[in-house]
Amino acid sequence: MENKKNSNPNLTNTELQLEMFEEKKPDGTIEAEPVSPEPKPHHDSRTIKKDAALASAAKQREISVSEFFTKNRHLLGFDNPQKALLTAVKEAVDNSLDACEDAGILPEIKVGIIEVGENRFRISVEDNGPGIVKNQIPKIFGKLLYGSKFHTIRQSRGQQGIGISAASMYGQLTTGKGAHITSRIGHDKPAHYYEIQIDTRKNAPIILIDKEVEWESPHGTKVEIELEAVYKKGRRSVDDFIEQTALANPHATIFYSVTGEPPRELSRVTDGLPKEPLEIKPHPYGVELGMLMRMLTDTSAKTLQRFLVQDFSRVSPRVSEDICTKADLSKDMKPSRVQPVQAELLYKAINASKFMAPPTNCLSPIGRELILEGLKKQYNADVYFAVTRPPSVYRGNPFQVEAGVAYGGDLPGEEPVTLYRFANRVPLLYQQMGCSISKGVTQTSWKSYHLQQPKGALPVGPMVLLVNIASVWVPFTSESKEAIAHYPEIVREIRLALMECGRHVSAHIRRHRKETDALKKISFIEKYIPHVGIALKEMLKLDDKQEKAIVETLKDTLQKSRIKTGRE
Amino acid sequence: MENKKNSNPNLTNTELQLEMFEEKKPDGTIEAEPVSPEPKPHHDSRTIKKDAALASAAKQREISVSEFFTKNRHLLGFDNPQKALLTAVKEAVDNSLDACEDAGILPEIKVGIIEVGENRFRISVEDNGPGIVKNQIPKIFGKLLYGSKFHTIRQSRGQQGIGISAASMYGQLTTGKGAHITSRIGHDKPAHYYEIQIDTRKNAPIILIDKEVEWESPHGTKVEIELEAVYKKGRRSVDDFIEQTALANPHATIFYSVTGEPPRELSRVTDGLPKEPLEIKPHPYGVELGMLMRMLTDTSAKTLQRFLVQDFSRVSPRVSEDICTKADLSKDMKPSRVQPVQAELLYKAINASKFMAPPTNCLSPIGRELILEGLKKQYNADVYFAVTRPPSVYRGNPFQVEAGVAYGGDLPGEEPVTLYRFANRVPLLYQQMGCSISKGVTQTSWKSYHLQQPKGALPVGPMVLLVNIASVWVPFTSESKEAIAHYPEIVREIRLALMECGRHVSAHIRRHRKETDALKKISFIEKYIPHVGIALKEMLKLDDKQEKAIVETLKDTLQKSRIKTGRE
Repeated sequence: MENKKNSNPNLTNTELQLEMFEEKKPDGTIEAEPVSPEPKPHHDSRTIKKDAALASAAKQREISVSEFFTKNRHLLGFDNPQKALLTAVKEAVDNSLDACEDAGILPEIKVGIIEVGENRFRISVEDNGPGIVKNQIPKIFGKLLYGSKFHTIRQSRGQQGIGISAASMYGQLTTGKGAHITSRIGHDKPAHYYEIQIDTRKNAPIILIDKEVEWESPHGTKVEIELEAVYKKGRRSVDDFIEQTALANPHATIFYSVTGEPPRELSRVTDGLPKEPLEIKPHPYGVELGMLMRMLTDTSAKTLQRFLVQDFSRVSPRVSEDICTKADLSKDMKPSRVQPVQAELLYKAINASKFMAPPTNCLSPIGRELILEGLKKQYNADVYFAVTRPPSVYRGNPFQVEAGVAYGGDLPGEEPVTLYRFANRVPLLYQQMGCSISKGVTQTSWKSYHLQQPKGALPVGPMVLLVNIASVWVPFTSESKEAIAHYPEIVREIRLALMECGRHVSAHIRRHRKETDALKKISFIEKYIPHVGIALKEMLKLDDKQEKAIVETLKDTLQKSRIKTGRE
Repeated sequence: MENKKNSNPNLTNTELQLEMFEEKKPDGTIEAEPVSPEPKPHHDSRTIKKDAALASAAKQREISVSEFFTKNRHLLGFDNPQKALLTAVKEAVDNSLDACEDAGILPEIKVGIIEVGENRFRISVEDNGPGIVKNQIPKIFGKLLYGSKFHTIRQSRGQQGIGISAASMYGQLTTGKGAHITSRIGHDKPAHYYEIQIDTRKNAPIILIDKEVEWESPHGTKVEIELEAVYKKGRRSVDDFIEQTALANPHATIFYSVTGEPPRELSRVTDGLPKEPLEIKPHPYGVELGMLMRMLTDTSAKTLQRFLVQDFSRVSPRVSEDICTKADLSKDMKPSRVQPVQAELLYKAINASKFMAPPTNCLSPIGRELILEGLKKQYNADVYFAVTRPPSVYRGNPFQVEAGVAYGGDLPGEEPVTLYRFANRVPLLYQQMGCSISKGVTQTSWKSYHLQQPKGALPVGPMVLLVNIASVWVPFTSESKEAIAHYPEIVREIRLALMECGRHVSAHIRRHRKETDALKKISFIEKYIPHVGIALKEMLKLDDKQEKAIVETLKDTLQKSRIKTGRE
């Protein structure tokens, strides 16, 4: 930008320019070329266009998913330059953590934010993960809706196959430059370097550079993207994201550097990798009729009975046979032969049967001990508490809620509490009030736990709350994965977890009050002990020495009772 | 459903079933199979998986946009059965209105909601539009991201090419049945009937039936979709949508029937079609660097100068030459030869130039007269007012805001005002508080217009507000098009329109108060006139006749002054 200093860093160049060219009216409003404000009704002024159907047909076209999300990039979290920086870093870090954990590697991630010009940054995220097989690199970074996680029922950070290619697309849109990727799958294999752009019209990668390079790492992936962005500190910043990521991923070490800032190392606090979440099959109650019909066509099973056992979780051969009987279908029938009407009978029979709840070894919560450790590391508080709820289910999807709290100490007392939201250990920084987690917090009655709470708002007090939801499929309210949709089952579990936290904080507050009350009483009594001494001295005709001895005894007794009542 | 009566109509069968199988704990919570709540840290228990990169590569797959939206159907407005019914009807009606207007036909639309079973409905939407060319029918109804509106810059209800095929996909998912379409493009052409399903894995239509049929209509399209749904009356119902659609589309006649309800006809109040919105080219300030680079590749123009003039709006040959000079590029250069570095220079030169604002004949607002007529037809109020603001611009996109108000009369006085939100004449029924329009209303200071207003909320009083935004690209907060994103330019225009409405309402309230005050004064004076008569009679020694004459004169004078001060 040569023409004008960008005074508002939240504006893109485009918006700045629009500010320039528009004629401002005296009241500061902007007005485009005026047109007659009243649309004239076209009475009889237009005949029916006979060729309208043909004209429309000529315009019909396929819209590639890249074109769609380019035009709707705010749906992916690329609304403005500040958020774009966060979203791009987030997508890359999420992928790195997923990749390391899948391979059983303790993650070590280097995140760099390099300023390369005015409102231009290059982000660089490098991991020590397993690396990416050469021929997969172009599609993973250069094609939207491509990935390994969408079709499996298993907990992971990424789930859509959109994130990182969207970041690369946004970089290309704003700087004209593609993503640079370096990856290596083993010390005995070469490292590959790619420069990739996206053909948005085809939603396909264009390979600009593809070569072998020298790389010091034995395995891992490094992605670099240049983009129009704004770097800011404070809430919802990249700094904030990195810190919260470290909090929810205590097994990861993150090296973080930003142009002009001292580099930081956020070291892991545990060498234990999270429990590995296992992939599961769909639960029969999660399936919809249309989906069942497709599964019947796609299955490799030779009989209906086998199909139900093999393609679903929690269906035993006996239950499967019962379902076939209920549906009045032969258990030996070929699945692909099932007609629509029969599929509906089968669907009804499934829904009238009883099954065990879905298996939950597909979930990997942070765990209460690590939440506690993380909170203690980050805050100097009086009391810490954490809880991991037992797994529950929404729409056939297993999920598990955990919550942690730090209270008192150095935390500021007169402000709304700080709320950290996580989904599968990923910090959620935007759309706080549209999120189930916030709903769970505001719907909890904190007053009964001795905390102030304005109606329908976060409680007020020296408190930090942390909530994480682990699920095989987190129902986000948009593709940008910023907030969790309001499923009643999820909100209920969040509230139950928070109530446990609330009870512990409440017990502490009560104990603390009791203590304060006792201290007040003691200092009150202490004040009068000398007077009691004087009175006794007069009444019992004691000498000074005896008086002093009695005062000492009284003080001593008080001290003992204080220890007994106040400090236990 | 044979097993259990669906007592909660907001639950799908799946949810009901989940309620059944889960073991409820005494506190009413649901618990899945318990697992150890503490994840065990796997110290040294797992070696690095050497084949992780290969295992992941084997799982990498393309995700079709249909699969993506099947799993994320809440993003499209198909969260629950009640909303699904509304969304499906809305998408079909929007398409019908667009089609009629494009062809210059006064819309006549038949909407039917037919109950076919428990929680099963068939919707039927038939229009008198231009019809759809035979070979386009399967893709329009059986492929997501396919349409004629996405690639044009022009005001229309549909813009994404997702809506109607998503409705058809939801129907298929919940009932296993595809969409049925009948269409005819002229009285001399046959009517075609299709039954179509979507191959979600390929995002492509499967044609089940394709035949010619007898049809009474000379031209038009009829779409029928069977789906799992719940029909309810009241706010955010299909009834509500139909009524609001009639309000914002006074040129349309809608026949509306629901199983078990008397059929209704909502007749048009004007025979004038809306001003036809024209298609425009992108404005140079709306273009981003990546987009500019693609346009340079795609253009049919032979020179750079010609490219800028031909592919953008508001670029004259002279301005184009200036831009080339500023960018230090030859105006005769072939656009496809422009290198990335040169494209960036060109981009900077464009952004350092001045252009006229985008043309606004691409917009078609409802118009203040028709808004007034609509409000008068629907409400018995004391005062009506409407305003259409001049066009404005956000991110290069022209838009125009209009607002209407009805105040007093039969409207309830002690409740928050009713707010109708429209985008390109389409009623927005969900996510009210996340919408720019609501933000515009709550940010307006209604107290200065003599209305009560709780902090940050809608004003309270006997008032109905209507706001419509007309734009070539409405920035919705999600694919389901329920709320408008918070662009400051848009919120500002909404506020300016509402302030005009506020001033008119305020003037009415003040006049009304003055009138009430005057009436009070008059009745007060009236009461004392006879006493004045008696006093005068005594003081001036008048007879009864004279006294009576004076009282009459006084009453007469009062009456005249009342007409003068109160009723003008």
